[in-house]
Amino acid sequence: MNYRAIIKSVSILLLVTGVTYILPLFFSITLHAGDYQALLVSMCITLIVAGTGYGLTLSETTHIQRKDGFVIVTFAWLFISLFGALPYYFSGTVTSFTDAFFESMSGFTTTGATILTEIEDVSAGILFWRSLTHWLGGMGIIVLSLAILPIFGIGGMQLYKAEVPGPTPDRLKPRITETAKTLWIVYVAISAAETVLLLLGGMSLFDSLCHTFGTMATGGFSTRNLSIGAYDSAYIDGVITVFMFLAGVNFALHFAALKGKLVHCYRNSEFKFYVTVTIISIAMATCFLAFQTPYGFWHSFRMASFQVVSIITTTGYSTDNFELWPYFPQVILLCLMFMGGCAGSTAGSVKQVRVLMLLKHAYIEFYETIHPKAIKRVKLGQTIVSNSIIQDILAFFLLFLGIQTLGTLFMAALGLDLVSAFSSVLASLGNVGPGLGSVGPMDNYAHIPILGKWFLSFCMMVGRLELYTVLILFIPEFWKR
Amino acid sequence: MNYRAIIKSVSILLLVTGVTYILPLFFSITLHAGDYQALLVSMCITLIVAGTGYGLTLSETTHIQRKDGFVIVTFAWLFISLFGALPYYFSGTVTSFTDAFFESMSGFTTTGATILTEIEDVSAGILFWRSLTHWLGGMGIIVLSLAILPIFGIGGMQLYKAEVPGPTPDRLKPRITETAKTLWIVYVAISAAETVLLLLGGMSLFDSLCHTFGTMATGGFSTRNLSIGAYDSAYIDGVITVFMFLAGVNFALHFAALKGKLVHCYRNSEFKFYVTVTIISIAMATCFLAFQTPYGFWHSFRMASFQVVSIITTTGYSTDNFELWPYFPQVILLCLMFMGGCAGSTAGSVKQVRVLMLLKHAYIEFYETIHPKAIKRVKLGQTIVSNSIIQDILAFFLLFLGIQTLGTLFMAALGLDLVSAFSSVLASLGNVGPGLGSVGPMDNYAHIPILGKWFLSFCMMVGRLELYTVLILFIPEFWKR
Repeated sequence: MNYRAIIKSVSILLLVTGVTYILPLFFSITLHAGDYQALLVSMCITLIVAGTGYGLTLSETTHIQRKDGFVIVTFAWLFISLFGALPYYFSGTVTSFTDAFFESMSGFTTTGATILTEIEDVSAGILFWRSLTHWLGGMGIIVLSLAILPIFGIGGMQLYKAEVPGPTPDRLKPRITETAKTLWIVYVAISAAETVLLLLGGMSLFDSLCHTFGTMATGGFSTRNLSIGAYDSAYIDGVITVFMFLAGVNFALHFAALKGKLVHCYRNSEFKFYVTVTIISIAMATCFLAFQTPYGFWHSFRMASFQVVSIITTTGYSTDNFELWPYFPQVILLCLMFMGGCAGSTAGSVKQVRVLMLLKHAYIEFYETIHPKAIKRVKLGQTIVSNSIIQDILAFFLLFLGIQTLGTLFMAALGLDLVSAFSSVLASLGNVGPGLGSVGPMDNYAHIPILGKWFLSFCMMVGRLELYTVLILFIPEFWKR
Repeated sequence: MNYRAIIKSVSILLLVTGVTYILPLFFSITLHAGDYQALLVSMCITLIVAGTGYGLTLSETTHIQRKDGFVIVTFAWLFISLFGALPYYFSGTVTSFTDAFFESMSGFTTTGATILTEIEDVSAGILFWRSLTHWLGGMGIIVLSLAILPIFGIGGMQLYKAEVPGPTPDRLKPRITETAKTLWIVYVAISAAETVLLLLGGMSLFDSLCHTFGTMATGGFSTRNLSIGAYDSAYIDGVITVFMFLAGVNFALHFAALKGKLVHCYRNSEFKFYVTVTIISIAMATCFLAFQTPYGFWHSFRMASFQVVSIITTTGYSTDNFELWPYFPQVILLCLMFMGGCAGSTAGSVKQVRVLMLLKHAYIEFYETIHPKAIKRVKLGQTIVSNSIIQDILAFFLLFLGIQTLGTLFMAALGLDLVSAFSSVLASLGNVGPGLGSVGPMDNYAHIPILGKWFLSFCMMVGRLELYTVLILFIPEFWKR
């Protein structure tokens, strides 16, 4: 283990995060929000600690091995969340560091679960920082899932590589930098487009930026207590629905589309599956809402499409209290929480491509019961998917279910009821944000016991980093030579 | 497809079922229950229909192929349940045939879910028939899972074969008959022992037999509204706990143990895992009950051990309303519902051996992320488990989860709340009986909409016959030449 290289890498990432405090500071001062001191102190502490770490390891060449990579990614997310929690604590927005850390981790993992009970009372600088953590986390996760994790052999991107010749690199350097830059341009471009469209809808620049950050990162932090429902505007609902959907698409496809290669999207199996699942879910939810509530067709469609897209992309914005919906659309939303968006997007959870592979695999196994001698292979588009990838996906799914089960037991042991225990873990592990029961779309996580908040923060990180990256550090053998 | 052979086989099994009406008739007449007419009419109809079927296909040689096997097993269970529903209907115990069929299917699949609201008002003959259907179903499932399904290559028994040289046959005939006889002797012997022990505890012969049937088949039908709780006897609780546990053990192991080869049990990985899971679950549930309820340690232990064993074996008897327990032991019970007892027992659900293999597989996949070049194989005892068996188990598990998910959606669409929808499907598919929510241990299935009752009956059959046996009939290709 090259500890010096690890410290250097984490320090660099922390330095970058520290510099971004300039943005909330700008808004804090412009809007006279009165929270610039908290932001400035947090910025200084972050920069000093990160600078010291970097200074001490300056001479180190960044010769990073596979194992070091796991440690860097996990500790970068952990330390950035730790230091990112400072503004909440220093500004007095929250009274315990547990809450500050929960909110920060929820931000950087693009989860969007909040412990704030009165969001509109929070000062502008802190609110901007809160939304910005989403956007930074989202950027991080795209680069991680499309440029870094494939090198470690996890994240399901092997699949993607086989189908589309995207910007996935073969070697760590120098292509990782190049890929990151390309993805960054795509991310900024789509974000800019959304901000402009929200501004045109009458939203303030501040709110437009905050909600763009929440949308593009599929995070879900809002500046309003009622989330997007506060605007009660079909136009804003529509814009955010479309951009949440886009944020749930593999960013390599966006890149291809921007280069004019739209054909890649039509051909991409995961994209087609994602579109199909979304349309079917919206259609079913709309029917149930239209027939079993007094909503009427158009309002049902508007509520259903927003909520389905919000949940399948693991964003977590809401325009309606879906806990008051009939049970059927609620179960649909629970299923979608498990699925998540496409791999290589900012969405969390299991991911569409894995679900698609699992379904195909189960069907083929089933088929072989009738034809024991038939040899059928799982295909993605025209490409045969190797057995070892199928094994990886199955193992990922089992691990996800295992953590979900143990997590539910843990939260139930802390006294949460069945629905709240199950959905709080799923909403954290899948980086969704709101769950059902006492952590529903109109509730928050303030009432969760301290131990539960730390555990759910851990689940957010584990889920965000595709399980393996974090969990592997808990195997003693990992630390041996 | 050899339809004549199929009709002949199903007819024979139906004839045997028809003959067993003698037992409830005996109790009906002896106890002057006044329901002998309903039983007699049902017996006659069953025997006439089965006899006609048999007569028309008398000349047919029973040359049965793999495909025919699936059809025979599924249709035998379906028709036996259909005809077994007659007494409930004719005696006026229930007013709709849906309810009669649900109760009959629940009996023969050893599920134990009931639509009866006042069990103690039901006449003795009908109650005896109700419990007897459990016992017959349990006998059927042992023969099926240990002697017949392995020939079709499903049911997870391949695993078992590798580890213990039990009575599993290699060819269909004549060893199938021999195996069946051996298993039948074991089943009857243990049943007799339990009946005697229950009699010694002060239970009437009638109740002793009925509860023995419910225990040995891991069914769960009782003759009392409060289930085993009605007796409020630590002795009876203890006896039934022990025999439920035994009924959840692979019957091939019982056979080995009765032959003096106890060493097979110690060596059997599934048995050891089953014991471990049971002990840990009891210990955890006891702790939570002792600390979070006014029960005190011994009462907590008695309630926890009974309920844990009742649920892990998918029996479903209760001595306490576990819906009033703290949430943690409730989630434990939900997890145990998924696991079920050992393969080759009368218990339903996923089965211990499959869970064990899934855990081992997930661990090895995880291990290989650290050591990408290491080749570790899943072992059961000393035997390496082939990759194709692991694939089968994974596919089974995915299919189970898939049906569970679609089933929950279906029940939610009928208006059931989340917990009731999820647990009613799990309790049916896993052949447990009671669930949580509106189908909890102190509730029943009477309030489920008609469509839901048919669907849950279907789930019981699908779960009981290891999914594939039934579902395969729905693939059009199965029916082609």
